[in-house]
Amino acid sequence: MAERIGLNTIILHGKPKISAYAAVGGSMEGDGQLKGKFARIFDDDTLGQDSWEKAESFLQQAAAQETLNIAGLEPKEIDLHFAGDLLGQCSASAFSARSLSIPFVGLYGACSTMALSIAIAAMSLESGFAQKALAGTSSHYCAAEKQFRQPLEYGGQRPPTAQWTATAAGACLLEEGTGQPAAGVPCVSQVHFGKLVDLGVVDANNMGAAMAPAAADTIGGFLRDTQSIVGDYDLILTGDLGSVGSDLLRQLLLNDWGVDLSDRHNDCGNMLYRADEANEINAGASGCGASAAVLCGDILSRMARAELKRVFFVGTGALLSCVSPLQGESIPAVAHGILLESR
Amino acid sequence: MAERIGLNTIILHGKPKISAYAAVGGSMEGDGQLKGKFARIFDDDTLGQDSWEKAESFLQQAAAQETLNIAGLEPKEIDLHFAGDLLGQCSASAFSARSLSIPFVGLYGACSTMALSIAIAAMSLESGFAQKALAGTSSHYCAAEKQFRQPLEYGGQRPPTAQWTATAAGACLLEEGTGQPAAGVPCVSQVHFGKLVDLGVVDANNMGAAMAPAAADTIGGFLRDTQSIVGDYDLILTGDLGSVGSDLLRQLLLNDWGVDLSDRHNDCGNMLYRADEANEINAGASGCGASAAVLCGDILSRMARAELKRVFFVGTGALLSCVSPLQGESIPAVAHGILLESR
Repeated sequence: MAERIGLNTIILHGKPKISAYAAVGGSMEGDGQLKGKFARIFDDDTLGQDSWEKAESFLQQAAAQETLNIAGLEPKEIDLHFAGDLLGQCSASAFSARSLSIPFVGLYGACSTMALSIAIAAMSLESGFAQKALAGTSSHYCAAEKQFRQPLEYGGQRPPTAQWTATAAGACLLEEGTGQPAAGVPCVSQVHFGKLVDLGVVDANNMGAAMAPAAADTIGGFLRDTQSIVGDYDLILTGDLGSVGSDLLRQLLLNDWGVDLSDRHNDCGNMLYRADEANEINAGASGCGASAAVLCGDILSRMARAELKRVFFVGTGALLSCVSPLQGESIPAVAHGILLESR
Repeated sequence: MAERIGLNTIILHGKPKISAYAAVGGSMEGDGQLKGKFARIFDDDTLGQDSWEKAESFLQQAAAQETLNIAGLEPKEIDLHFAGDLLGQCSASAFSARSLSIPFVGLYGACSTMALSIAIAAMSLESGFAQKALAGTSSHYCAAEKQFRQPLEYGGQRPPTAQWTATAAGACLLEEGTGQPAAGVPCVSQVHFGKLVDLGVVDANNMGAAMAPAAADTIGGFLRDTQSIVGDYDLILTGDLGSVGSDLLRQLLLNDWGVDLSDRHNDCGNMLYRADEANEINAGASGCGASAAVLCGDILSRMARAELKRVFFVGTGALLSCVSPLQGESIPAVAHGILLESR
């Protein structure tokens, strides 16, 4: 069972554990800062499929399958599967889930989906709805560009504030915990679901600016609810604000909440690609797969090795649609936070 | 807390209650079989907005607001808000949720979303994640036609198997229950999440055929898990298979599970529009809003009056995307079942 504290933070007394996790990615992702940390790299961005959408489904399925392999479990041993993605009708997740045949719950949180799916999977364990739950997400650069921006063949220029949608996927297996953070196994100990925050940003090429206020609201609200300070955490990990959004987050937290992130903050958007690719990727990585890759490829392993013990992972999502910016709408954003702990 | 029984059914010991609910709709919906049962009817399908997408957001927001009004609650008194819809990036839900400012979880289950959102909201109550949760969904005929089929101006012909996307929305407020079905207040007592089922239907104008196998799998699996029979329920309510899918469901359940639905089955797709509109609407109503309107406008009230006491509500969703049928993909479907009880 869980318990609400403050305005909007939830303490999970069962401490569901993340017992297996894997990230997969494309060639550019595999050759970046996470080199050697992917369970599988696909050198061909089509993944042998005849559409970008099918390629992304295959990618998400690979992350789920690698996670199950690590856990030594068959899909039929999993009670519930939670997943979502950026494509219209969350189709990468649906077509990936079709191959697994686990009772399936589709989620939509844009780039916050890795945090959201873990949070909801953890809720399913705390409620007794599941004993084993799979959470995952994906994104694919070519599928996202085709849908949200221009066909790749058009060769459109990208402004400096734009982020690069990662071709990557991640998945986690959650199981019932022991009620305490354990050595070698990260657990989900607190959750803070975010409200939609929209300060009126209308530039769909500046997601960092659109999402930073939501991240500030969630981090500020979480610290207030838990009466804790930045120094209580080894890492406050946002994903994915990129370089522009990260700067804004620091300013907003300092101005509005009096919170200085100092050296405890990093952003998944700045942790995926190599620095010498900065000209191409502009303001950093984005897409559901970016934070999925950083979390499942790197952070959870570091927690298992006790290099990090308390990580507040804040998934950030821009809840625009393909058409809403063209209709003059501003961009509502959301940030879902989960406190991960190990010992 | 909840408990799993059989292969995939969950007993909710807390029996979260559905303490307020409301449906809103367009003029054709308001003048159909549910006449007089909508909390609000919009005679102008634009709802005063300048795009169909914004009209749908406004519709969903109206259903949520009517529900809160009935409950006498402010948005800030609600812990979590669960919603989804058919539009790309679930934008009707996001832009609706923006106005409420309740911590928001986006879901995607296509036309199963009313059942899915209630199931997940019930899970949030059983886990202690929330004491009060809002669940809702919407669809809009014009927004759906624009996205999935042809611009309305094109005047395309619809085949006899096609269903008519309802311009409607529904919302429910869930609160902690007493552990027993109560008089006058429906509760959620069991949940059965569905697997994706895909028997190879590729005709995006025949959703009933695509979804019937998923509905059969969920109803058959639920009866098996609970060792119950059709006669134990006052109503097995699917939504939305329409006339074609309902016939197929009966055949599949009889052939594959030996289950005869006899007179206990109805489908939300056949319960919304007037019979004399059959030529226009073809095989019945569909869209997230159809089952939302039937459930929140009619069924829950009948349960509150004890005309119905045990209703197994099975939301069915076709998890295709706008592009997947054009890429030759078949249509995966899902059906999520919730047992509603009153006394």
